[in-house]
Amino acid sequence: MLDEGAFRSSSTARHSVDLNSDLGEGYGHWTMGDDQAMLAIVTSANIACGAHAGDPQTMLASIRLAAQQGVAVGAHVGYRDLAGFGRRDLDVDPSHLYADVLFQIAAICGVADSVGYPVRYVKPHGALYNRVVGDAAQARLIVQAILDFKPGLALLGLPGSAAQVESERLGLRFFSEAFVDRAYNRNGTLVSRDHPAALITDPPVVAARAVGMVTEGSVTAIDGSRISIRADSLCVHGDSPNAVAMALAVRREMTAAGLALKPFLDSSERMSS
Amino acid sequence: MLDEGAFRSSSTARHSVDLNSDLGEGYGHWTMGDDQAMLAIVTSANIACGAHAGDPQTMLASIRLAAQQGVAVGAHVGYRDLAGFGRRDLDVDPSHLYADVLFQIAAICGVADSVGYPVRYVKPHGALYNRVVGDAAQARLIVQAILDFKPGLALLGLPGSAAQVESERLGLRFFSEAFVDRAYNRNGTLVSRDHPAALITDPPVVAARAVGMVTEGSVTAIDGSRISIRADSLCVHGDSPNAVAMALAVRREMTAAGLALKPFLDSSERMSS
Amino acid sequence: MLDEGAFRSSSTARHSVDLNSDLGEGYGHWTMGDDQAMLAIVTSANIACGAHAGDPQTMLASIRLAAQQGVAVGAHVGYRDLAGFGRRDLDVDPSHLYADVLFQIAAICGVADSVGYPVRYVKPHGALYNRVVGDAAQARLIVQAILDFKPGLALLGLPGSAAQVESERLGLRFFSEAFVDRAYNRNGTLVSRDHPAALITDPPVVAARAVGMVTEGSVTAIDGSRISIRADSLCVHGDSPNAVAMALAVRREMTAAGLALKPFLDSSERMSS
Amino acid sequence: MLDEGAFRSSSTARHSVDLNSDLGEGYGHWTMGDDQAMLAIVTSANIACGAHAGDPQTMLASIRLAAQQGVAVGAHVGYRDLAGFGRRDLDVDPSHLYADVLFQIAAICGVADSVGYPVRYVKPHGALYNRVVGDAAQARLIVQAILDFKPGLALLGLPGSAAQVESERLGLRFFSEAFVDRAYNRNGTLVSRDHPAALITDPPVVAARAVGMVTEGSVTAIDGSRISIRADSLCVHGDSPNAVAMALAVRREMTAAGLALKPFLDSSERMSS
Repeated sequence: MLDEGAFRSSSTARHSVDLNSDLGEGYGHWTMGDDQAMLAIVTSANIACGAHAGDPQTMLASIRLAAQQGVAVGAHVGYRDLAGFGRRDLDVDPSHLYADVLFQIAAICGVADSVGYPVRYVKPHGALYNRVVGDAAQARLIVQAILDFKPGLALLGLPGSAAQVESERLGLRFFSEAFVDRAYNRNGTLVSRDHPAALITDPPVVAARAVGMVTEGSVTAIDGSRISIRADSLCVHGDSPNAVAMALAVRREMTAAGLALKPFLDSSERMSS
Repeated sequence: MLDEGAFRSSSTARHSVDLNSDLGEGYGHWTMGDDQAMLAIVTSANIACGAHAGDPQTMLASIRLAAQQGVAVGAHVGYRDLAGFGRRDLDVDPSHLYADVLFQIAAICGVADSVGYPVRYVKPHGALYNRVVGDAAQARLIVQAILDFKPGLALLGLPGSAAQVESERLGLRFFSEAFVDRAYNRNGTLVSRDHPAALITDPPVVAARAVGMVTEGSVTAIDGSRISIRADSLCVHGDSPNAVAMALAVRREMTAAGLALKPFLDSSERMSS
Repeated sequence: MLDEGAFRSSSTARHSVDLNSDLGEGYGHWTMGDDQAMLAIVTSANIACGAHAGDPQTMLASIRLAAQQGVAVGAHVGYRDLAGFGRRDLDVDPSHLYADVLFQIAAICGVADSVGYPVRYVKPHGALYNRVVGDAAQARLIVQAILDFKPGLALLGLPGSAAQVESERLGLRFFSEAFVDRAYNRNGTLVSRDHPAALITDPPVVAARAVGMVTEGSVTAIDGSRISIRADSLCVHGDSPNAVAMALAVRREMTAAGLALKPFLDSSERMSS
Repeated sequence: MLDEGAFRSSSTARHSVDLNSDLGEGYGHWTMGDDQAMLAIVTSANIACGAHAGDPQTMLASIRLAAQQGVAVGAHVGYRDLAGFGRRDLDVDPSHLYADVLFQIAAICGVADSVGYPVRYVKPHGALYNRVVGDAAQARLIVQAILDFKPGLALLGLPGSAAQVESERLGLRFFSEAFVDRAYNRNGTLVSRDHPAALITDPPVVAARAVGMVTEGSVTAIDGSRISIRADSLCVHGDSPNAVAMALAVRREMTAAGLALKPFLDSSERMSS
């Protein structure tokens, strides 16, 4: 599904990388993960916008915490499916998807502006994220909604995805991410969550993979082969039982390897909108 | 509940007035009222923000229609109570109310900005509207959310209400409205909907009251006395069976009386934010 | 997709038929269709269960009206997708689908029992209806939920569907329906709603097709060929603008042709549960 | 607010008591408390019905776990306010409250029947629980909904509440509960949650109070006075951080004191419906 061009034939060393995580995923009295702990570790926070998770209070509190920590804030847009946490495929009408995404980024950007800490990027969530890996029409709708609302925002997604292709075609900045706690197939796609070895949960292993992704630009695939990884950001999941331990291990090994963690969007950059 | 100062002792003639109505109140496959017909008649549209009614698609479509007709758009913010259409008293925690209102105005303002037709004002809906007639704390939270997000917006509400008092205290522009299809008590409050004569449904009667409110600055109360009415805008309900006929009658009688209908916020005014 | 056996090679004349419609599809302050008028015409009412539409009040009121009119009540179960009215494909986890259906039929059956007018059958709605035309696994989950809760209920669906096959395999009574206002393909499937001629809206045409379906056991397909139709019940949609006129025309022509309209489940039958 | 008769002038020793807790309060991907651990300790589980918390999957799983542990199941009915977890006062129309409660108990009773482990009682949740302490009209609606649906169910609530008065007046069995982790006022009411000493969180203290409530029929109020407590069941909260530790301490001290824990409704009793 991913075009070959998405993966560089030669590895490229880097000196810094972004660490992103999905946060603000509570709803009402329900919480998910330990946002406060994660915000002290990561450099970018994908904050839910009330469709698949999140609500006005949770969103506002998460943005305030991110601002205190200097963590870059992204709009984590998803399907309007609270019951399924946005992880179920949902056949949304194109005009509705455009409006759904526009509404969500408008809401979170406005809330963030009101605390003086603007949203920097958009990252699709769950089933929508997976959909725009291959679905050019849905990817285009997301890109168009962002451009119509605030063209200075960036899009974060899978390298080589339809989301990247459409971003570049329509003139939206795109940044790519890799998953430090997910196994990869030889062709650079993620091993399905149904596979028993899909998730990597041992903090030292996860941290070593993360460092390798940055210093060598590659990772060992599930079949033992070494594949190239191009990523502006590394994603650690915030809702697994040992999420904090894993994120902490990644940060420590990164620092030990002389790598800096900083947002993929330098906060000194001027937003264009 | 309303202080005396809310009603002027002498009537003041005007040459123009705004006509506002609650629109965009559908949800998914459900519709409410005839938005297209109403938008050809009124001059300001209070558009639902997804809490008590409305959804991204309905909101976007309503704003586009309003833009085509040159109808001013207001954010119709309400309690997050879809099942009760925002008409049930709900004891919302203050910090939550602030976030709820902030989220709703952020969402609609962003959606409207993306079509190049900015939102001009905010009007609370249903139970929240009634609450901020007398509840200074909740009124203050709404005013503060608006000021923190976009101080150039105005607030539309009942003259003499806590909403007006807090707006003036905190420096937010406030505009007042009267209800052409609701009976008034001698003290200027609305006759409760439980009263059999609370709603006035005969279009000619409604139209005559509307004209009198503007030309004489007064209306006949339910006890037969004549009371002063101070209003920058007249509200006609959009969800009653004969809403369109009533709004049309008001517009015709206004025109026949030489009165112009135009938004209370002149679109040539520069917004401050 | 439908096996040939679903359509009988020879037509079979009948003297009575059931007329069913989707009702109770309001939500809170929103209404859909004219339930009162439709309940005076049809003989079976598929009442929404709160997942894709409907709420406790609407459900209770609809059942009471159906009881007054002697209209048989069915549980109209759907995906939990209020925003999409249950018409969007949604990839529900099997164990969740089982629980979703169980919950919905439990709720409506209990509400109906409390007014002494028991639910007689189950009919899937929208995207779930379409899904169990071909998806044996999902069909089986619905059948199993019914059997585990109240095996005396029947299932109403498309003839030849997976829903029918699984019902017969697991021992649940199945009744089939035909659509009087939908065009049919030569192979007996419905013409997609995307096709301009998919919906038949002229009441006399609809009524004539309905009578033909019963007296001749056949209908003219979109390509002009005559195809067999086997149906215990005829479905008229309740949410189209001329739904009442159409249903009324069907009832009149049926009566004129000497056909009786009565529930496919005779109310004198003893339920087994 | 509570009539004096609710508290017996002389303490009455008991040899067994019920321990109840609010469980099944997850929603979709969100969980609340440790249901599995609590179900190994308590003897009655108040399971959420999808209005303030809970969903079909969570409900079904909770009932199955309760059945495995022999824990009695109650319908924990609440306001339809997912965003507020049913803890916010909500002014529900009486006819709607009746339908809301009827729908919820119908759903959970049907789901429980399908696994062969019937629901035994109803307990209102949160703001609705507090409302029917003093509101006779709302209490009557709940009692009537239960009687209309399944008169063999019991109601669990605060001794001396309107819920008890209306139950006894209309012929519904009522059982009373005391709160082991809440401070009491001298008059037998609960100290408001706003008070710093409202919640008692030290497991040994909670356990000692629980034992005293049963063996002596009394507890020390917040002013140091000793007040009578009449309770068929003791409630331990399931969503506090140390809920499991607290419940475990209560169970241990009860056993050490020679007291048996068993459901207030003996499972050998024949339900009347």
